[in-house]
Amino acid sequence: MKVFTQYSTEFKLKLKDLSKNEQNIAFVPTMGFLHDGHISLIKKARQENDVVIVSIFINKKQFNNKSDYNNYPVNIAQDLQKLKEQQVDIIYLPEDKLFYQEPIYTNININYLTDKLCGKTRPGHFSGVALVLIKLFNQLKPNSAYFGQKDFQQLMVIKQLVKDLDFPILIKEGEIIRENTGLAMSSRNSRLTELERAIIAPKLYDNLVEMAKNIRTNPIEVVKIIKNTKENLIKSGFSKIDYLEIYDDNLNNCDNYLNGRIFAAVFLGKVRLIDNIKI
Amino acid sequence: MKVFTQYSTEFKLKLKDLSKNEQNIAFVPTMGFLHDGHISLIKKARQENDVVIVSIFINKKQFNNKSDYNNYPVNIAQDLQKLKEQQVDIIYLPEDKLFYQEPIYTNININYLTDKLCGKTRPGHFSGVALVLIKLFNQLKPNSAYFGQKDFQQLMVIKQLVKDLDFPILIKEGEIIRENTGLAMSSRNSRLTELERAIIAPKLYDNLVEMAKNIRTNPIEVVKIIKNTKENLIKSGFSKIDYLEIYDDNLNNCDNYLNGRIFAAVFLGKVRLIDNIKI
Repeated sequence: MKVFTQYSTEFKLKLKDLSKNEQNIAFVPTMGFLHDGHISLIKKARQENDVVIVSIFINKKQFNNKSDYNNYPVNIAQDLQKLKEQQVDIIYLPEDKLFYQEPIYTNININYLTDKLCGKTRPGHFSGVALVLIKLFNQLKPNSAYFGQKDFQQLMVIKQLVKDLDFPILIKEGEIIRENTGLAMSSRNSRLTELERAIIAPKLYDNLVEMAKNIRTNPIEVVKIIKNTKENLIKSGFSKIDYLEIYDDNLNNCDNYLNGRIFAAVFLGKVRLIDNIKI
Repeated sequence: MKVFTQYSTEFKLKLKDLSKNEQNIAFVPTMGFLHDGHISLIKKARQENDVVIVSIFINKKQFNNKSDYNNYPVNIAQDLQKLKEQQVDIIYLPEDKLFYQEPIYTNININYLTDKLCGKTRPGHFSGVALVLIKLFNQLKPNSAYFGQKDFQQLMVIKQLVKDLDFPILIKEGEIIRENTGLAMSSRNSRLTELERAIIAPKLYDNLVEMAKNIRTNPIEVVKIIKNTKENLIKSGFSKIDYLEIYDDNLNNCDNYLNGRIFAAVFLGKVRLIDNIKI
């Protein structure tokens, strides 16, 4: 396992060598503090490719909220241990100042897909995601890149970006991995208290499951069901609903709610949690 | 000389083969109706590389004016003849519908550098340039790409884009090539009448040369000199001044006009002409 902290000549030569030998390169971008959601993507990447590159980079450009950025959890030593266990070939840990050589004037927007959900409530977030990924794609030139379905809108945005800009990269996706309680795995879960994580946070998923069941039974009552679910979430102990909406898997409005997907973002204290499930 | 009209499997295999053999690939993007400005870039590309790819594609996304797009001159047969003479290896003539698979939601802005000159008077123009180039860069994966200094702002925008997004492509530039009269070569010159092209259009360059001389002599009178030059251009027969401004070579405001560059865009009838010269 080789660790690079910058896009050095040595790193470029290594990548060139891999490409010359026609090695199939998989890339799993992360912001570190790895959990089993990341690991499941890495396992998949490991199975399907010759070479696996994992990046760990807390991308400040995708944070619209400074305190969220400052409080993002970090544990590089633990991450490296996990990546070694998964036999990852290359770890890329870029330094902020070298990675973003200011001034950066290029701004990427993915219209339509980002005018709702996290795109709406986290202005600039997906521009930051697009910027970091285009840079990483251009540096690493992977054949495929792996993303989890927890960030479902992100996955759609990335697929569109890669299609629109003709990046020669296959986008692969992994299902949401959940804790035993049903809570979707997320690095941000570590910022919850033990009690919040065990008792309140899992109720997000419980409520979504219940909401999906109610819609399947009674699709014409969807407005009322959304309203009730929001009330139940607040009663469960969440401090704020960021959004609770239904779209189809292309993020269009649903013709038929039975084919829809529920998207939720809620705050528990200062921690923002997201989840989504198919109806 | 091989001509591809789409990004076919055959084309991809050809490109892969070149890259496997470590051929140095130069790319000269054009909108066709080739003149000696293009040819000088192609000659340079030919000298400096193993393989030269020229694209001919009238990129509708960079036209903010529909009639300018509809009247853009075309002569593919003549272009192919010229490219053959220059021993170009690959011509890429993409078809609009296959190249732009709608819907395209990705929009690229290069801030600051585009808030002036053509970026200001042709809204959306540089977003269209950025989109087509990123797509072409991703498809063709050249080692270098060649652009002329006539579109000086475009050159700056492209350099910034490639830097910001880490495209592994060297941007090379060619000097402005002029007709005997001094008129900067441009495909759009063909839309002028014989008289306009011979008598009026060259006065743009004459006026810029005179203006530069006056500023060198009398830099504190720059505001007055710009005003006079605008009046002289209108007297010379130009129908409208789109802009006449001075910036340094990084498109910043000039600390010292003696290090500046004059940028001009004028209309002659319905044809828009641009030029720039170092003071």
